[in-house]
Amino acid sequence: MSITLYSLCGSDRDRPFSPHCWKVVMALKHKGLSYVEQPMPFTAISEIEGGVSKTVPILRDGDRLIADSFAIALYLEETYPTRPSLFAGEGGKALSRFVEGYSQTTIHPAATRIAIKQIHDMLDPEDQVYFRESRKERLGKTVEEVAAGRDAEIEAFPETLKPLRHMLSHQPFIGGAAPLFADFIVFGALQWLRIVSGSIHLPAGDPVGEWFERCLDLYDGEARRVA
Amino acid sequence: MSITLYSLCGSDRDRPFSPHCWKVVMALKHKGLSYVEQPMPFTAISEIEGGVSKTVPILRDGDRLIADSFAIALYLEETYPTRPSLFAGEGGKALSRFVEGYSQTTIHPAATRIAIKQIHDMLDPEDQVYFRESRKERLGKTVEEVAAGRDAEIEAFPETLKPLRHMLSHQPFIGGAAPLFADFIVFGALQWLRIVSGSIHLPAGDPVGEWFERCLDLYDGEARRVA
Repeated sequence: MSITLYSLCGSDRDRPFSPHCWKVVMALKHKGLSYVEQPMPFTAISEIEGGVSKTVPILRDGDRLIADSFAIALYLEETYPTRPSLFAGEGGKALSRFVEGYSQTTIHPAATRIAIKQIHDMLDPEDQVYFRESRKERLGKTVEEVAAGRDAEIEAFPETLKPLRHMLSHQPFIGGAAPLFADFIVFGALQWLRIVSGSIHLPAGDPVGEWFERCLDLYDGEARRVA
Repeated sequence: MSITLYSLCGSDRDRPFSPHCWKVVMALKHKGLSYVEQPMPFTAISEIEGGVSKTVPILRDGDRLIADSFAIALYLEETYPTRPSLFAGEGGKALSRFVEGYSQTTIHPAATRIAIKQIHDMLDPEDQVYFRESRKERLGKTVEEVAAGRDAEIEAFPETLKPLRHMLSHQPFIGGAAPLFADFIVFGALQWLRIVSGSIHLPAGDPVGEWFERCLDLYDGEARRVA
């Protein structure tokens, strides 16, 4: 069966940047599954596979269609149980939801405030219109109003990663000695920030930066090839 | 074999309050193990079991002595594998370190800033001297200087629990359908705040408050009997 991952891009199809899609890329690589990635711009998402989901990632695996990064990870774990585990048991599965909660409520808002203008500028004109309107509705501010706080956000950013830094004093990955989907959840958020803004804005020697580099090295540097 | 848990108290031995010791109480109850709790004041910790650790919890299980709440949970899981699991697998064990990182770097500092004066006032005079000196060294401020920011800290507190709230939109416990040690890590921090300051300072209807009440109900309301 062939696997297709529909992901998100701007004008340059070779720079897919969605944090949620990067989680799935890493999960597919972790499982050792072959797939074809189809990056799509924001305004084309509604046309993917007959409009099955308003958001990417969307995964087609043979005759199965799954949307949402966490649902895709659960699907891959159930469908390919003999390949390397994404959760290492039911506890890992449940606690990954907490890691998702942390990433979504802490890293994502900060990354948006740091990189909103750069994301906008990567998009085609019709996607820029969509992006401006949807972010205005979500954030209550224009792209430029959010971007005005960029320097302060960059300065505050390392603080948001304290829980990760504390954990890294005990083990090299959130998954322990080796990465699990929980690592990819946080990695996806920082990879998004790296691709759209050129940096994850951490000082040299930060254990979180070193963990991020370890993730970039995984699977023959799969995530490092996009910059 | 008999199990003894050395924990922490102020003048009132019936109100043990250490977050780390509450994690162990819940872990022992979860495993269905009988134990005797020996609450000790700050300045007596160095005398416990010949001075084996500078901090509580300390657990004696027959001829074994273990300090540190996470180490104790790992010990209980390994020693009593046929009783209900605290981690539900290796993934749960690894990811619990991330939950610990979140709790220690986010909830603990906030709880300290909210309740430092109340903790001080619960202690015997010689422990108050120790507490003042050690907190001055750790925080760079006097008890009263920290306490001056109490109202602002209480107002900001619900925001620190966003990751938990997000997770609770998917499942009733961090451990999924039922609690695991990861729940007790966060519960311990809020139980500490509840005992020392009389409240966890969340508005009615907050999903985190509802999860906390579910934890108070566990094991015949074990944690609710101390207030």
